[in-house]
Amino acid sequence: MVPARVSLVTLGVSDIARSRAFYRALGWETGVDMDGFAVFRTGGSLLALYPIGELTQDLGDEATEDGVMAGLPRRTSLAINVGSPEEVDQAVVDALAAGAAMLAAPAAAPWGGYTAIFADPDGHAWEVAHNPGWPLGADGLPQLP
Amino acid sequence: MVPARVSLVTLGVSDIARSRAFYRALGWETGVDMDGFAVFRTGGSLLALYPIGELTQDLGDEATEDGVMAGLPRRTSLAINVGSPEEVDQAVVDALAAGAAMLAAPAAAPWGGYTAIFADPDGHAWEVAHNPGWPLGADGLPQLP
Repeated sequence: MVPARVSLVTLGVSDIARSRAFYRALGWETGVDMDGFAVFRTGGSLLALYPIGELTQDLGDEATEDGVMAGLPRRTSLAINVGSPEEVDQAVVDALAAGAAMLAAPAAAPWGGYTAIFADPDGHAWEVAHNPGWPLGADGLPQLP
Repeated sequence: MVPARVSLVTLGVSDIARSRAFYRALGWETGVDMDGFAVFRTGGSLLALYPIGELTQDLGDEATEDGVMAGLPRRTSLAINVGSPEEVDQAVVDALAAGAAMLAAPAAAPWGGYTAIFADPDGHAWEVAHNPGWPLGADGLPQLP
C-alpha cells in the first residue's frame, strides 16, 4: 500500500521571488524560504514553489506519456512523504505493481533525503520522499522546521 | 486575505475509470465516486480526478500566459474552498489586488455551488469555491458527504 497522502504540492514557477511575493500578498506564510525553494503552510497540503526548469529536469522527459496528454507537459508535481528510505522503496514497488511508470528510481537526494518519482496513468508525477529534516506529524504530514 | 488552503488538487485525466482503478490499487479510498468525477480522501488535500478536456475547458485558454510557461498548458488545478458565495467574491477581489489574473469570474456553478478561477503569476489555476454540499470542517477543509 502507498500511504494516501498529498504531503506537498509543488508549482513550477519562472521567478521564485515574484511568486513568493504573490502568495505573501494573499496573506500566506512561508515555512521554508530559500533562494530557489519556498514552502507555504496551508490548510491541507504544503505548497512549494520551485523553478520550472529544475522541476522539468527532475521529472525527466515526456517519454512515458502518450495519447491525449502528450501535448501537456508537467508543470506541477505532488509528493507523498514517508518515514524512512525503506518506506520509499516499498511504496515504489507497490506503485509499479499498481501500474505506475517510473520517472526516477529511488536514490539519495543531494539535500540529504531519499526519493523516487513515479507517474500515474496520465503521467502525473508523484515523488515519494523521505526527508529526515521534515519529521512526520500525527496526521502523516511533514512538520516544517 | 485569501484563506491559505489547498482544499482540493484536481488531476486532469484521459480515462477516469482507469485512473480510479490505479489509485484504488494503491489502497486509496474514494469519498465521491461518479462517472465523471472521483475524489479520494488523503492526508492533506483531497485528490480529485476529472476529465482533462473538461478541465481545459473550465480553465479557459492560455491567453493569460506568457514567457517560459507558455508552452506548458495546465493539466492540474488547485482549489480553495470557502464558507459562502460572499467569501468567494472577497477572495477574488483580494487575489486580483495581489496580482492574480482572472480565468473565470465568480458565478453560480451548474452543480449548485458558486465558484471563480484565478491564475497566479505563472498561470497556475486556483478555483475559489463555495460548495454547499461540502461543509468545511474545523481545519477549514471540505467534509465529503
